[in-house]
Amino acid sequence: MNNAIILAGGMGKRMHSEKPKVLLEVLGKPMLEWVISACEDADIDNICIVKGYGAEQIDEYLNNRHETAFQPERLGTGHAVMCAAEFLKKNKSGHTFIACGDAPFTDAATIKSAYEHHVNNNAAVTVVTADLDNPHGYGRIIRTDDGISAIVEEKDCSDSQRAIKEISSGCYWFNTEELLGALPKLTRNNAQGEYYLTDTISILLSEGKKACAFKTDNCDAVLGANDRKGLLKLNDIARMRIIEKHLENGVEFVTTDSVVIAPDVVIGASAKILPGTMLMGKTVIGKNSVIGPNSRLTDVTVGENSVLDNVVAACAVVGSNASIGPFVQLRKDTVIKDYAHVGDFVEIKNSTIGEGTAVAHLTYVGDSDVGQNVNFGCGVVTVNYDGTNKARCTIGDNAFIGCNTNLIAPVKIGEAAYTAAGSTVTKDVPDGALAIERSALTIKPDYAKRKLTRHIEKGKRLKH
Amino acid sequence: MNNAIILAGGMGKRMHSEKPKVLLEVLGKPMLEWVISACEDADIDNICIVKGYGAEQIDEYLNNRHETAFQPERLGTGHAVMCAAEFLKKNKSGHTFIACGDAPFTDAATIKSAYEHHVNNNAAVTVVTADLDNPHGYGRIIRTDDGISAIVEEKDCSDSQRAIKEISSGCYWFNTEELLGALPKLTRNNAQGEYYLTDTISILLSEGKKACAFKTDNCDAVLGANDRKGLLKLNDIARMRIIEKHLENGVEFVTTDSVVIAPDVVIGASAKILPGTMLMGKTVIGKNSVIGPNSRLTDVTVGENSVLDNVVAACAVVGSNASIGPFVQLRKDTVIKDYAHVGDFVEIKNSTIGEGTAVAHLTYVGDSDVGQNVNFGCGVVTVNYDGTNKARCTIGDNAFIGCNTNLIAPVKIGEAAYTAAGSTVTKDVPDGALAIERSALTIKPDYAKRKLTRHIEKGKRLKH
Amino acid sequence: MNNAIILAGGMGKRMHSEKPKVLLEVLGKPMLEWVISACEDADIDNICIVKGYGAEQIDEYLNNRHETAFQPERLGTGHAVMCAAEFLKKNKSGHTFIACGDAPFTDAATIKSAYEHHVNNNAAVTVVTADLDNPHGYGRIIRTDDGISAIVEEKDCSDSQRAIKEISSGCYWFNTEELLGALPKLTRNNAQGEYYLTDTISILLSEGKKACAFKTDNCDAVLGANDRKGLLKLNDIARMRIIEKHLENGVEFVTTDSVVIAPDVVIGASAKILPGTMLMGKTVIGKNSVIGPNSRLTDVTVGENSVLDNVVAACAVVGSNASIGPFVQLRKDTVIKDYAHVGDFVEIKNSTIGEGTAVAHLTYVGDSDVGQNVNFGCGVVTVNYDGTNKARCTIGDNAFIGCNTNLIAPVKIGEAAYTAAGSTVTKDVPDGALAIERSALTIKPDYAKRKLTRHIEKGKRLKH
Repeated sequence: MNNAIILAGGMGKRMHSEKPKVLLEVLGKPMLEWVISACEDADIDNICIVKGYGAEQIDEYLNNRHETAFQPERLGTGHAVMCAAEFLKKNKSGHTFIACGDAPFTDAATIKSAYEHHVNNNAAVTVVTADLDNPHGYGRIIRTDDGISAIVEEKDCSDSQRAIKEISSGCYWFNTEELLGALPKLTRNNAQGEYYLTDTISILLSEGKKACAFKTDNCDAVLGANDRKGLLKLNDIARMRIIEKHLENGVEFVTTDSVVIAPDVVIGASAKILPGTMLMGKTVIGKNSVIGPNSRLTDVTVGENSVLDNVVAACAVVGSNASIGPFVQLRKDTVIKDYAHVGDFVEIKNSTIGEGTAVAHLTYVGDSDVGQNVNFGCGVVTVNYDGTNKARCTIGDNAFIGCNTNLIAPVKIGEAAYTAAGSTVTKDVPDGALAIERSALTIKPDYAKRKLTRHIEKGKRLKH
Repeated sequence: MNNAIILAGGMGKRMHSEKPKVLLEVLGKPMLEWVISACEDADIDNICIVKGYGAEQIDEYLNNRHETAFQPERLGTGHAVMCAAEFLKKNKSGHTFIACGDAPFTDAATIKSAYEHHVNNNAAVTVVTADLDNPHGYGRIIRTDDGISAIVEEKDCSDSQRAIKEISSGCYWFNTEELLGALPKLTRNNAQGEYYLTDTISILLSEGKKACAFKTDNCDAVLGANDRKGLLKLNDIARMRIIEKHLENGVEFVTTDSVVIAPDVVIGASAKILPGTMLMGKTVIGKNSVIGPNSRLTDVTVGENSVLDNVVAACAVVGSNASIGPFVQLRKDTVIKDYAHVGDFVEIKNSTIGEGTAVAHLTYVGDSDVGQNVNFGCGVVTVNYDGTNKARCTIGDNAFIGCNTNLIAPVKIGEAAYTAAGSTVTKDVPDGALAIERSALTIKPDYAKRKLTRHIEKGKRLKH
Repeated sequence: MNNAIILAGGMGKRMHSEKPKVLLEVLGKPMLEWVISACEDADIDNICIVKGYGAEQIDEYLNNRHETAFQPERLGTGHAVMCAAEFLKKNKSGHTFIACGDAPFTDAATIKSAYEHHVNNNAAVTVVTADLDNPHGYGRIIRTDDGISAIVEEKDCSDSQRAIKEISSGCYWFNTEELLGALPKLTRNNAQGEYYLTDTISILLSEGKKACAFKTDNCDAVLGANDRKGLLKLNDIARMRIIEKHLENGVEFVTTDSVVIAPDVVIGASAKILPGTMLMGKTVIGKNSVIGPNSRLTDVTVGENSVLDNVVAACAVVGSNASIGPFVQLRKDTVIKDYAHVGDFVEIKNSTIGEGTAVAHLTYVGDSDVGQNVNFGCGVVTVNYDGTNKARCTIGDNAFIGCNTNLIAPVKIGEAAYTAAGSTVTKDVPDGALAIERSALTIKPDYAKRKLTRHIEKGKRLKH
């Protein structure tokens, strides 16, 4: 049974945010969630998040998904781990990974490889390291024949130590019992008056235990951010890494400008992502679909060969060979079936649009179940709220809804039924029937001469 | 009579596409079309495209515009040209340019200059070359006093040859009869077992013919792409080259982010292109017009001093001093005359909008002929389809169409006629007349107290 | 009393513009305005703009905000200042700053510090200088023990002078009386036949006066643009400088692609600016608000915790905790109060939307006063223009406007009044009353069988 402790107590003062630092986002996903995902993907059994500043926000975010520990004041990384001592005591049979909640590029492969290295070497502690071209500011790794002898902070480095390029990521694997043994021996006898987790290495070495280092190829794993500029840089790095991955998979981009793709998005080969497109959350795009320009999809699933042009959608499912947009909003719990067409200035909410159905322009479909091959005229409204109750509309296959029709829910339009343009439909319409609500048309000759004075004057000016 | 053979048989496996590689696009134009355009612009008489993988897609794309030859299997560049032997035999009096269908930056000026060099030197073959800072991977040109003696592949280079920066572009001019004579002498006696077109050079030299090289200044002419990352790079190069050309012509950009302009687009001086704008196909923009942000125009012509803000348009014509947007779609066969205004959430399709006419908001005009200085209220719909037939609306000069009016086509609204808000108009309205379809308004006192319970409750919560 | 003279006579031929060069924009603000702002912020008392090419456009732009002088022909910088001699004579007691109207990054801090240096050294003239890594093309500063002895033009430099990195910005502080004394002594005895302002330095030195130099840290202060490419570069520099400033203040960006923020915009901490967003003019964004993607706000004030998604707005005020978009236009004189919701495809113009009111979809509200907690159904239109007159609608608190309702202005909807869907409301509706305008609904059985032949045929094809 292995554990992970994720240090998440910091405030991030220079971020000027009311959120704790680890809840700030990289590509729409909190940094903490990147680290949790890596730990989960590395099959770690028990995860404990050490919270401090903004602890209640972290509780709200986690929603009991993982255990937490509370660090009442900021007294160093060693102190943060001490605050999780109860968690460690409950799960002390195996090993514990210590991760930084604000290092979002910590990855599962590194965690797993470091674990293997840690166990194979029978180490008490294994620090995850990386070679940096510019190691300035990081603790340097002092290697020995079969492990490491120390991590030396920048300010304590000799000239030769300062030249070392291998640095500590701040992540470690510990034998859990050894960690529990070493924690009480940490002291605050240093300039900052803090408990440093790094000091466990000298404690364990002094007891004859073994300290090792595992060097990862993923140099980005060490990156964090202390201000908004640093956070933007993390976003930039993640953005281009993810786009490169999709390029390798055969996804097409004309330019990557303004394209943002979250880490968990899946895109099929030969799909085309046009500029200004944001694919967020757990969005999935099928082969050959064209998304964008200027579309923003959050937790949306799209089939193959579909087009979403200037679409804002969340929590929706779009089938294959569907054509959506330009200028469409698909809201929560919308399902658009194959070959359907949703045209300009249409909102669909909590509704199913059947196969081959067309909702071409200026229409709102809310809380409705719409069959196959239905044709919506322009300006149709499903009137789903009367000020007290919400209700649903049901529309049968092949129905034809006239322009500027109001369907007053609850109402059922039968198969191949027809509603006349401009009608307000308050009763069910049987299969194959026409519903019409309309007065007689009156023509008043010469009325407009009196009425349109200003308007006609404008036209005269236009001509002269 | 000169020929061009464009090699277009490749699959482009690493593109992960169902299309043949040459149909993949740079700035919305297939790479093959870039090369065809260059050959056409260089006044080449006969063009033959050698197709292979996805031949039927290439046939469909070309639509008989040029001759094709079929290469049934991929056996090298020499083999591809052999497959076009019949084409050469029909047109053997002059010279033949061999082009790579996946090198989109091959340009007409290079083709023409190389031709002059080829003819003036009385060469049997002239290879198009370029000096590259990093020639790695390309065949090096071995110059002699009056021509070249060989093209040496990277792997066969001596150290001194490897230092040569002049490389072969893979494009050639051949004397057509000499090419026809050399082709049967190519063999597959090499590591790959392929027929190499390069081998024609040693064959022709061994027969005492002359081989020359023409060095182009356009180093990009040699660029191709083997994967999506390479294709994106071609898009980036083309994108910035085209934007620079428009800058020189006096076009204004605040930033070039997310701006994509296709190669055949024409833009007048002092026009302003705002971010997120895609100008595709044969779009033409007049002087001083402002396009964008976030507009996408395909094959659209816009006059001078017009504004298109957040507009999606295709196959449409917009006059001068027109104001369109934000959030407008102009579909096929739309003509917007001078001084017209098309406002937010309006779709126009297959219609003419007369001079000075205003279609300000939330309106659909389809299959209609609209005169000058017409005023559309908000929410007007031209009802152009009744489920069986499509029909047109005609609206005369100075007419005033009331809000939420339905015009049931076919219908004619006379000059300076008026339709009352909320009317469905099923009959022609004479000049100067008012059409009104409306019931009596009934007021039921105190009704809302029963009806609005949930809604009013929400308001109370808002106040407390 | 100190003066500034801003040289603004140039045409900028290579800009291909009908505007004078100084009216071309950097981030939507004319270069001239950048320089005027700097002079105003430096508390200069009297400002005179020397106009020449396109003088009437400059007059129109300035709208009498500052004095102007006219330079009838382009005869050099000295000549331009001579044209402002009357202005100087009126205000000759203090000192005069000479600024270039096409150097937008001239900043108030530099003007003020240069002034202090000028006065403290009792100089007749003080040139503003900067150290440039690449000084090529600029006039070099020849320093002496207590001032400068000359500004040497590139073409006149000795080799050692050419190595000098300190260059003249083209901006100066003059003792006004000394400047007035020197101007008449300028001659056109040079290759260009122009009066050079630089020559005042040797004139003043020859009279035993003191010439000094003040070196600014703001190297960008010397930058101008001669063509569209140079102007784009100024935009790029300004764009990134302004974004960096907002990052330091705690503003969040996922990417800066297609983000344009004008120099006078104010943004609160933890606000989030999404891609494709343009914040122009005097826009103010409150803390924690989320703007974008693809929003363009010009002179808009937004409170805290509001969301503006795909919004185009100008001259509008949005409160706190409001949710606007996607796809919304807010036009001039719109006020949206706290907690209001304006949803997709809605235009608001010259109206107030009360606290907690919802205008959710496909609605136009123009010239209206809307109370609190009002609910607009979908497709509502305020009919504010009858072809001759414009009039207002008034809607009371808690009213409920049914879908596709037309409110014919002038009309007053009472508190908690209700209008039925599809009604055209031509009379005032008392508090708590229902207004309904509707005919009887007629159902015609089996009508659709005849009517929908083509449509139903399409549905059959879909299934097979």
